[in-house]
Amino acid sequence: MNVYGEGDIVFEIGVVVPKGKEKQEDGDNNCIEVLVNEFMKVGLIVERIVGLQNEYIKLAAKNDVLGRAAAALQMRKRTHIGVDLLFVLEEIEAFVHQPDGSLFSWSERYHCYNHIMYGIANTSMSAVILKSDNGEVHWEVGESILRKLESLKIVKDVFPLHDERTRKKLLKTWALNWGDCSAQPINEICSYYGTKIATYFTFLGMYTRWMLFPAAFGLTVQLVDFGSMQLWVLPIFFISVISWAVLFFQFWRRKNAAILDRWQMNCSAGVDPYNFSDKEWSSFQPQSEVMKKLESSRAGEKEAFQREEWLGCLKRLRNDSIIISSIICLQLPLELAYAHLYEILGSDLLKFSLTAVYLFVIRYFTKVSGKISVKFVKREYNKNIEYRADSLVYKVFALYFMQTYIGIFYHALLHRNFMTLRQVLIQRLIVSEVLENLMVNSLPYLRYSFKKYRAIRKNKRKHERGLSPGKGRSISRVEKEYLKPAYSPSIGEELEDGLFDDFLELSLQFGMVMMFACAFPLGFVFATLNNLTEIRTDALKLLAVLRRPTPRETTTIGAWLNIFQFLLVMSICTNSALLVWLYDQEGKWKISPGLVAIIAMEHILLFIKFGFSRMVPEEPAWVKAKRMKNATQAQDICSKQLLKSISSQKIA
Amino acid sequence: MNVYGEGDIVFEIGVVVPKGKEKQEDGDNNCIEVLVNEFMKVGLIVERIVGLQNEYIKLAAKNDVLGRAAAALQMRKRTHIGVDLLFVLEEIEAFVHQPDGSLFSWSERYHCYNHIMYGIANTSMSAVILKSDNGEVHWEVGESILRKLESLKIVKDVFPLHDERTRKKLLKTWALNWGDCSAQPINEICSYYGTKIATYFTFLGMYTRWMLFPAAFGLTVQLVDFGSMQLWVLPIFFISVISWAVLFFQFWRRKNAAILDRWQMNCSAGVDPYNFSDKEWSSFQPQSEVMKKLESSRAGEKEAFQREEWLGCLKRLRNDSIIISSIICLQLPLELAYAHLYEILGSDLLKFSLTAVYLFVIRYFTKVSGKISVKFVKREYNKNIEYRADSLVYKVFALYFMQTYIGIFYHALLHRNFMTLRQVLIQRLIVSEVLENLMVNSLPYLRYSFKKYRAIRKNKRKHERGLSPGKGRSISRVEKEYLKPAYSPSIGEELEDGLFDDFLELSLQFGMVMMFACAFPLGFVFATLNNLTEIRTDALKLLAVLRRPTPRETTTIGAWLNIFQFLLVMSICTNSALLVWLYDQEGKWKISPGLVAIIAMEHILLFIKFGFSRMVPEEPAWVKAKRMKNATQAQDICSKQLLKSISSQKIA
Repeated sequence: MNVYGEGDIVFEIGVVVPKGKEKQEDGDNNCIEVLVNEFMKVGLIVERIVGLQNEYIKLAAKNDVLGRAAAALQMRKRTHIGVDLLFVLEEIEAFVHQPDGSLFSWSERYHCYNHIMYGIANTSMSAVILKSDNGEVHWEVGESILRKLESLKIVKDVFPLHDERTRKKLLKTWALNWGDCSAQPINEICSYYGTKIATYFTFLGMYTRWMLFPAAFGLTVQLVDFGSMQLWVLPIFFISVISWAVLFFQFWRRKNAAILDRWQMNCSAGVDPYNFSDKEWSSFQPQSEVMKKLESSRAGEKEAFQREEWLGCLKRLRNDSIIISSIICLQLPLELAYAHLYEILGSDLLKFSLTAVYLFVIRYFTKVSGKISVKFVKREYNKNIEYRADSLVYKVFALYFMQTYIGIFYHALLHRNFMTLRQVLIQRLIVSEVLENLMVNSLPYLRYSFKKYRAIRKNKRKHERGLSPGKGRSISRVEKEYLKPAYSPSIGEELEDGLFDDFLELSLQFGMVMMFACAFPLGFVFATLNNLTEIRTDALKLLAVLRRPTPRETTTIGAWLNIFQFLLVMSICTNSALLVWLYDQEGKWKISPGLVAIIAMEHILLFIKFGFSRMVPEEPAWVKAKRMKNATQAQDICSKQLLKSISSQKIA
Repeated sequence: MNVYGEGDIVFEIGVVVPKGKEKQEDGDNNCIEVLVNEFMKVGLIVERIVGLQNEYIKLAAKNDVLGRAAAALQMRKRTHIGVDLLFVLEEIEAFVHQPDGSLFSWSERYHCYNHIMYGIANTSMSAVILKSDNGEVHWEVGESILRKLESLKIVKDVFPLHDERTRKKLLKTWALNWGDCSAQPINEICSYYGTKIATYFTFLGMYTRWMLFPAAFGLTVQLVDFGSMQLWVLPIFFISVISWAVLFFQFWRRKNAAILDRWQMNCSAGVDPYNFSDKEWSSFQPQSEVMKKLESSRAGEKEAFQREEWLGCLKRLRNDSIIISSIICLQLPLELAYAHLYEILGSDLLKFSLTAVYLFVIRYFTKVSGKISVKFVKREYNKNIEYRADSLVYKVFALYFMQTYIGIFYHALLHRNFMTLRQVLIQRLIVSEVLENLMVNSLPYLRYSFKKYRAIRKNKRKHERGLSPGKGRSISRVEKEYLKPAYSPSIGEELEDGLFDDFLELSLQFGMVMMFACAFPLGFVFATLNNLTEIRTDALKLLAVLRRPTPRETTTIGAWLNIFQFLLVMSICTNSALLVWLYDQEGKWKISPGLVAIIAMEHILLFIKFGFSRMVPEEPAWVKAKRMKNATQAQDICSKQLLKSISSQKIA
């Protein structure tokens, strides 16, 4: 429970059930009544609200109820010595409270609520027969009642509720705080939305702030005439932009480690998905699957693991090559054909209809390939859900990468048509980014408004006809939230949330301004403006337009960092190519000293990119020292007892 | 103690003291007698051998004596649940024995011996006056007797002794086992020499075995005439050699993780020197320095750490830039001048004298710069000795890199003189590698033989003059070992051991064959032959020619892996350049499609190099699973107790 005062209860989960028919059935066996009774029996605080269309059961829980669930879940929690240990209700003093004062974080609470709600099973000896509006429900022994009712569509939805007080506070200090453009109350965001969303906004804020430097430089390059030095301006711009990006990502890693320390999470910054070293002692759930496997096959353990590993590797390779080849064989020709036709077509009407056809085809293609990717990823042998999500991100990004850049590459590299290239870039940056961004964000709000309007009108009509029991009540808060759309991605619902689309947009924009930096230095200015609005619109979207998202616990930006790095390397190559073509007027590959210089510069920049990450440590020294101290302390305390139990095991 | 049977004592440490003068001083206060008595008092088993020139005190210890020292050292040892814990003598059952049956590994024993020997202090209330041949020694209160006698040159040397039985066995199964060329008894090497040397030989063996593929391919390319396909042979050779190297290093990382598991060491494979995550729970000594700092400055903790980190970073940057600029400004012109003069000089006599002058100058230069590097590295703020050694390795490698390759680059890239290039390569590979290798290895043996001969002759003369007490005895084994040279590097004695030179040779050879693979495919054959002899000569050197080296515990090849990777990237670039120049007959940069193809190929190979390491995990799945299981198990055992102690601390 998230407490302010003593008696102030914050309801955090909403369950949607159909409205009872005028209370004609007061019998004990009405399934809704039974559900509510069971909720109360396990210690949840229940509030029932009859809305316009449905009935809403709001749930809250005290710390002891959540604590029992946490212990049953074998949740690991940060203790005062900085090590994550299994939660035990009796030793509650040992565990660190959240910065906002509550014992459990929102993500932990959510897990506990789920465990409690779905853990309610029929513990009697025989099946119980419940009544519902449409007939009888057989509640079998050991069956979860909530799952049963969900499968019968009696429980229409279970969703996390907004906490109105915190939401309003965040609206004021974050989404509508236009004063300092890139300042965000990151800690409050973290405790309200969980680490994943907070990490995204931290990244977005830092990215926007850093972006100001290249934006200023780009503006200077565009506006000032350097006279005889003009030849040197673009290469210098290129070098400084690349160095800027290299520095940015390295310092982002450090910042990530620092904020994780502040959020009292165990740091896994810079750890690639294969490396478990940091997660061993801090994994949220016990890795029971792997453990069981280890137990059962003691003998051929090593061989089994190796076989499985290589089989998984081969399968992944097969899937990846299918996707890559399908992108190259199907999408690439399509994109090139579109770009080529667009180039040669004369009339604007034809161009417009061509674009319409193209957009229709490409949207369909993306949808289908996305679904295939999700299917592939699900079938792969992958270690955890986080890694699966990463795998999906790579695959889908490849799709969008083609879709976004092939046309631009076509203009830049094949036709060497710099005017068209700049036009395309301006068009994409302004139209696609700024306008589409606003449109995409306002769409859910329009949908929600329509739904609300329909619900109210329907209710009014019923009321006019005298069917509705209450008066023409205004719509209740929980009902409004039920009508709001969820924070879902355009692809692969169960692996990712809405952040997928936000990150995709951010990375495509990064690629656009970086890869063609030399052709269009002004791009950074557009990107900065876009990001400044992006922070506010994303915040508004989360706070006002959408339901509260299910919390996720990833602590880094994961696969996206690799994608940004990939785009950085690509941009070194493409900018070098652009420079070659800019200075090579005849197109005859004859610019001997210039070409060598540019190729040398490219290699040096690549070297800096890969060398620099070794120079600056990814984790600040103080975070490391703290972590080390914690580990040693924990070990010293328990060392003796461990030894005793080992030797007794040995002797027994 | 390393035990075979029950009563079989293996003496492992030798202490060299001057021979007593005809036992005229039997008094209690003779410092040698006191030293021996103190050794016996702390539980060491002592054997005194009067040699031809000196007296040798051989030391051994039982497990309980070593165990007490280990507990006092707060040594962490692997337990049966796979976690490293502080050693406690009472719970001896909990700790894993070494594969050879002894409780402590050689490295642990060595540390314990040192702790015991140097820990003998004057515990009485006043200074003790000891007699020596040259006068009196004041043994102050609390002073270590061994250190005192060492500083007065009475104890001439303390060195680890060979274990004759194991040494002979290793000679038979390893150094003189000519049957299977690349098979080595790695586990025995590890328990006799420690992990660092064993890791080197594992790497060398795997490298040699993998080298057979490119050697066979290179031989084919050199000997077979492919007719019209000749144009395609070199690029294909280039691609396959690079892929081979990429695969090799990735699989080496996996192998490294696997052998560490076998040796029951905590894996730190693939962890760069900045990352402590794996060392936290397994560090050999507690990181007391950092801890103290943390304790003392609670308040400004974070700021202090950050300041220190950045200061260290700046200092390192300054040192690095001094070294790099001195290499570029001093060494580069020298090398280029030599290469240029060698090219234009006509007479062989002049060439010969030029080479002599060059060799003299460059040796002097290397020596001085090496010393400067060591000084720099020592003054740097570095986390641990291992990291310091790595820093030194990078600096010295840069020196040797210039020295070895600049001349070759000169021929290859500036003069495009492929005949001279090939000649230089053959000369370097055969003369420098094979012959010099043999010579360098036999030099210590000759020095040792001369010393032995002189000692025997001196003794004989004394005996003839009737001065020597015993008969004309043959030289004893321990005396022979004392006369053998130590396993020391050519540079920076305290940071590295003799492996430095071996790795340096290996990496320079790797660079030579890889960077000029397209110009001289036969190089791989020479390298393979050289490596096959290298394994045996290095083994012989360690077993027969040198003293037993002090054990070191590094578990990876450390900085050398990064150097190999750097050479790999370099070789992608240089081979691309070689291909361009091979196919560009006119030297006019005009080979439009070919040039583009080669540059594209270069980029794809670079991409593969950096992408592949993400594809194949560095640690086999079974090692990871085991590690995870161990950690979870340990935590589950001690979780409850930890919690109790935390909450009691909290309340108190």
